Amino acid sequence: MVQYSKARLDASFAALSDATRRGVLEQLGRADASITDLADKFHMSLTGMKKHVGVLERAGLVATEKVGRVRTCKLGPRRLEDETAWLERYRQLWDARFDALDQVVEELKRKEKVDGRKKRE
Amino acid sequence: MVQYSKARLDASFAALSDATRRGVLEQLGRADASITDLADKFHMSLTGMKKHVGVLERAGLVATEKVGRVRTCKLGPRRLEDETAWLERYRQLWDARFDALDQVVEELKRKEKVDGRKKRE
Repeated sequence: MVQYSKARLDASFAALSDATRRGVLEQLGRADASITDLADKFHMSLTGMKKHVGVLERAGLVATEKVGRVRTCKLGPRRLEDETAWLERYRQLWDARFDALDQVVEELKRKEKVDGRKKRE
Repeated sequence: MVQYSKARLDASFAALSDATRRGVLEQLGRADASITDLADKFHMSLTGMKKHVGVLERAGLVATEKVGRVRTCKLGPRRLEDETAWLERYRQLWDARFDALDQVVEELKRKEKVDGRKKRE
């Protein structure tokens, strides 16, 4: 995996590590909103919401546009493809790892049975 | 979504927001390893690696066991189901949102064409 992609994954997973920021993305998935709307919706100060939107914007998950005095937020260009791919690959590793452990346990059980039979013979 | 689950997502996405920690998970997906092995593998101090493993452990992504003087790390119980589900849901929202925008653009184009035709008539 190239360094650039690593830094991008770092930024997007960090952006997703806050329930308010995930809520903002869900909200913008339904409709564009101003920062004031979002601050109201999440019972947060304008300054607090600006910080959250900044983190999302730097991660490419939100795009903002200022028209007059209002800054409107909408979903950004990133569809979280790489993040989903990473999680899917992890789950495959996880499954393979636990399957391997299951096989070891099964092998031990089988061996125990054979040994038990030998002792009885 | 319940509060407990939110805190869990916060912790796991934060744990995944570091390339070394993602690398440790990939490594443990192949084989269990001691903290010393991991520190060597990732060219990191033992103290630095202990911190990373601690973050992963608190998020339920790694389980450790101390036998004698060696602490062995293995993949934890969490298979990142909820995280994957969140990302999948987000991508559906994203697709729907951009499809909706496409439709607005198409509608505008169609209207322009009709208006243009009316003007020519």
